[in-house]
Amino acid sequence: MNKNEIIDKLKEKNIRAVARLLTLIENEEKEAENILKEIWNFTGKSYIIGITGPPGAGKSTIVDLLSKMAIEKGHKVGVLAVDPTSPFSGGAVLGDRLRMTSSQETGIFIRSVASRGHLGGLAATTRFMINAIEMLDNDLTIVETVGAGQGDVEIVQIADTTIVVEVPGLGDEVQAQKAGILEIGDILVVNKCDRPGSDRLARELKMMLSLGEKKDWMPPIVGTTATNGDGFDFLWKEIKNHKKYLGTDRKAEMRLKRINYELENQVSQKLFTKKMVQIGTNEISKMSKKILERKIDPLTAVEEIIRE
Amino acid sequence: MNKNEIIDKLKEKNIRAVARLLTLIENEEKEAENILKEIWNFTGKSYIIGITGPPGAGKSTIVDLLSKMAIEKGHKVGVLAVDPTSPFSGGAVLGDRLRMTSSQETGIFIRSVASRGHLGGLAATTRFMINAIEMLDNDLTIVETVGAGQGDVEIVQIADTTIVVEVPGLGDEVQAQKAGILEIGDILVVNKCDRPGSDRLARELKMMLSLGEKKDWMPPIVGTTATNGDGFDFLWKEIKNHKKYLGTDRKAEMRLKRINYELENQVSQKLFTKKMVQIGTNEISKMSKKILERKIDPLTAVEEIIRE
Repeated sequence: MNKNEIIDKLKEKNIRAVARLLTLIENEEKEAENILKEIWNFTGKSYIIGITGPPGAGKSTIVDLLSKMAIEKGHKVGVLAVDPTSPFSGGAVLGDRLRMTSSQETGIFIRSVASRGHLGGLAATTRFMINAIEMLDNDLTIVETVGAGQGDVEIVQIADTTIVVEVPGLGDEVQAQKAGILEIGDILVVNKCDRPGSDRLARELKMMLSLGEKKDWMPPIVGTTATNGDGFDFLWKEIKNHKKYLGTDRKAEMRLKRINYELENQVSQKLFTKKMVQIGTNEISKMSKKILERKIDPLTAVEEIIRE
Repeated sequence: MNKNEIIDKLKEKNIRAVARLLTLIENEEKEAENILKEIWNFTGKSYIIGITGPPGAGKSTIVDLLSKMAIEKGHKVGVLAVDPTSPFSGGAVLGDRLRMTSSQETGIFIRSVASRGHLGGLAATTRFMINAIEMLDNDLTIVETVGAGQGDVEIVQIADTTIVVEVPGLGDEVQAQKAGILEIGDILVVNKCDRPGSDRLARELKMMLSLGEKKDWMPPIVGTTATNGDGFDFLWKEIKNHKKYLGTDRKAEMRLKRINYELENQVSQKLFTKKMVQIGTNEISKMSKKILERKIDPLTAVEEIIRE
């Protein structure tokens, strides 16, 4: 398929064209940019739910249940699972998840996202992938990411409602990462509630929240057992509550702030790249060496590079 | 004092001129830049020890003891305590710490560091403050920062040897931040070793380290009781070990990498600022709004801003 064929097929909500575009984005092909530009005003209409948490927390089972539930309630759902840490394609995980693609109502896509993409970083790339999926005309997009610290926080800045999944018994080193990840959660899920330690985990999370700053929206803690569906009605209710809390205004304001932040990043990145092309990419290294050797001070170095 | 007077006095290792320059840097005066440019090749000669940890961990007592110890061993010591979170000047903390300034051998300076300085962010500003202090011809600079998460990690990227201080009994929320902060420590100190829970904390830290990636330098864990000086001989030994481990080559390599990283940041920041001056500062907001309203796509938006 060439560019125009892909665009035509995308407008027909063709799932294979979406998969094709996702691959182009994943591989950072220039063609992806050209397509994204032309489909931009068809996108941005879905409500985005982000799901994150440590490996083994049961995120994908939650995503599967949640999307089935949403479909039953009349939503059209797209699912994107991204892995910012390891590039993979196909294999066991993908095969396992592809079950659902057969369903007419939904599309599930699993993609790796490069950390410093041609398209401008993790968040931007993921956002473009969501835009690609939105060509299916889904009103709900569920984005699943592995909770891997920094990158993860960035990636979740995309969702309208962010769900952080925790499970009991993952050991201290995981516990230790909780503080940071809690800050980004609009809803906290304690999954595998049939396991010992889940009550204690819920209490701990509650305590951590109470120690944090007071906010208009205080994240509810929802206990789930993904294997039998326990707690999912409550989870769905809380998603709806948060969506209602956001309303049109808060959602628009939030999205605008993120667009603004990202635009600033993109512009400075591109300006830097352009400058590097102009003066030669190793000019910075050469200048750094001169700074270290005290042959030039860093302030003058910056000025000289800018001026060149 | 005007610019040239300050520079002259700095060359005479005048402590008041150093204090003056620090204030200029703190207040982000243009004059600071002009002075820093001219003293650059007199700076960079001290070995930098960074000390960080949560509030209440006893960092300042450790810094005091460590600097006295270093002076006794024949070093000339400068101390910089920076607070990236709250701008303060004078007051109880400063008064309390000024005791040591009377000593001829050392200078202690407590400064707040603005998070997005004219001089280019937290790390850059702190580095310039260290350069100012280095005019005292000290061979050792101890930089103390409050462990406040992100900003803190950035600020510690300045030190040759980074010491992370932890104490028992600060509660779960502090524990939870440990994982991130451990990564930056070359030496881990468990302070207040006379308190219950210190053994357990040391064991926990050891476990966390063993779970992390294997490195050439594995951070030793040192127990101290700052109030009576216990463990400080061992701490001093470990600092010397780490300094020896770094040697001239690793230290230069590390500093070069940081200079390079920072130079890239500075250049893109300045290019962005220059662009904003050129096209008007609210061009980004206007463009963001158009992106949100789907009137332009983000890729074209970036191109248009760059082209303008």
